[in-house]
Amino acid sequence: MNSTTDTPVTVIGLGLMGRALAGAFLKAGHPTTVWNRTPSKADQLVAEGARLAPTVGDALQARSLTIICVTDYQAMHELLGASDGELDGTMLINLTSGDSAQAREAAQWAGQRGARYLDGAIMAVPPAIGTAEAVILHSGPQPDFEAHKSTLDALGTVTYLGPDPGLASLYDVAGLAMMWSVLNAWLQGTALLRTAGVGAATFAPFAQQIAAGVAEWLPGYAEQIDSGSFPAEVSALETDARAMNHLIEESEAVGVNAELPKLIKAMADRSIAAGHGGEQYPVLIEEFSKPRND
Amino acid sequence: MNSTTDTPVTVIGLGLMGRALAGAFLKAGHPTTVWNRTPSKADQLVAEGARLAPTVGDALQARSLTIICVTDYQAMHELLGASDGELDGTMLINLTSGDSAQAREAAQWAGQRGARYLDGAIMAVPPAIGTAEAVILHSGPQPDFEAHKSTLDALGTVTYLGPDPGLASLYDVAGLAMMWSVLNAWLQGTALLRTAGVGAATFAPFAQQIAAGVAEWLPGYAEQIDSGSFPAEVSALETDARAMNHLIEESEAVGVNAELPKLIKAMADRSIAAGHGGEQYPVLIEEFSKPRND
Repeated sequence: MNSTTDTPVTVIGLGLMGRALAGAFLKAGHPTTVWNRTPSKADQLVAEGARLAPTVGDALQARSLTIICVTDYQAMHELLGASDGELDGTMLINLTSGDSAQAREAAQWAGQRGARYLDGAIMAVPPAIGTAEAVILHSGPQPDFEAHKSTLDALGTVTYLGPDPGLASLYDVAGLAMMWSVLNAWLQGTALLRTAGVGAATFAPFAQQIAAGVAEWLPGYAEQIDSGSFPAEVSALETDARAMNHLIEESEAVGVNAELPKLIKAMADRSIAAGHGGEQYPVLIEEFSKPRND
Repeated sequence: MNSTTDTPVTVIGLGLMGRALAGAFLKAGHPTTVWNRTPSKADQLVAEGARLAPTVGDALQARSLTIICVTDYQAMHELLGASDGELDGTMLINLTSGDSAQAREAAQWAGQRGARYLDGAIMAVPPAIGTAEAVILHSGPQPDFEAHKSTLDALGTVTYLGPDPGLASLYDVAGLAMMWSVLNAWLQGTALLRTAGVGAATFAPFAQQIAAGVAEWLPGYAEQIDSGSFPAEVSALETDARAMNHLIEESEAVGVNAELPKLIKAMADRSIAAGHGGEQYPVLIEEFSKPRND
């Protein structure tokens, strides 16, 4: 596929996100076909130059790069399953939210019908689509990603993760876990500091600096995990656990929520009970890698 | 007090951290008096030029800047209380770990005995002392901090937080909460990705980027907290909560720990139940600011 903006694209599913995707393709100059169960959702896009396909089958007949972004994988299977015969020779990129198992199943299902398939995850809100801020993760066959990357560039910062179609979903939730954890830790600290009359804006740069600083340790800590050896080069888990008690006690003493501090301590305590008190923090990977009570 | 390295200092308490502090002062050229309950802990420092005081009272008689770093506040009160009469006119900097209430009580106690008092918290491991990496937080009267900053600079990156002596302890635990939360979120993501054969080192730069990126939102989110108004400019909490379900489901489906994802969701669910589903994430400050079940 060439890299000009003449490359035709099809977008199936015109919720908030689907409309943002189709809008970004149109803005970049791509001939854009759209389809939605409720056709009126396409009105604005048609006014901007999109072609509204009367049926999913018709939309697929274009055999152009087809982005699908619907409520869930079940909705995707219902929509595409009804036009099963039109999948042969299509290139599907599924940006529907789901889990890694659903992505792997969908890849297999599409392959059986002669379609090429990439699974994607959008780490952005609809208004960010079309800007570099919108990170869109892709997984599946690398040649398919490479062939369409220049077209996908219209949507934001597009990234390729690997051939396993489940990776986009896994990286997506892993990134969200980081996002909420940074926010929650900051809220915990803000709640603590507000008891001393310190405003959130005063504490924010301090929290920001700690988060960015700790993030820099991750590649080094990753080496410990990948080698399966956790020498206490910086500090031992049992020393950390004593400081965790300070966090819990301080939270309780000033009357703020202590659930996050207690979970931090509980994970460490279990690792110490399993004999890892003299090792370094990343040894906790063993606790994070198994369900509770296993 | 002048800013030359002739400024005499006294360090009381020679555990791992106390020895590192005294060693950094000696290395910077400060005449350094030390005291420890077990005098042999001072042997190496004496070899490096420190003067070993025979009693706490003798150590305090120097009326020099006195750093105290012992096991806990009780130990500090026992040690200094026995030489109560020698406190008048001293400048104490207490780097003993404790909570904000203990720091405020200690400041009052010292003031009643005629001592000036700053409370501090060391955000570093002993081997980092004396390098810029060692962040040492101080709270209490600003003129006392300013008068001694050039001496304290020998210990690392010294920071002043405000006149409330409890601030150093609060910032310390708030920073630790951030540290452990970034590490735990990374471990959660690493555990998820390892089920797909992705190594920790492969995932680390991605996690690093998310953590640093989210940290940049904090000043903006802080404005919402300080103004008490949480319009859903980027996304609404109830939308986030649906994505939290994906994180829980994916964690359970691939067989990793789901406690952190469940806590993230539980905090959000409570805020939604309290009527905040249409507001933005920082509205969760209300949940973080009160004990569970209040």
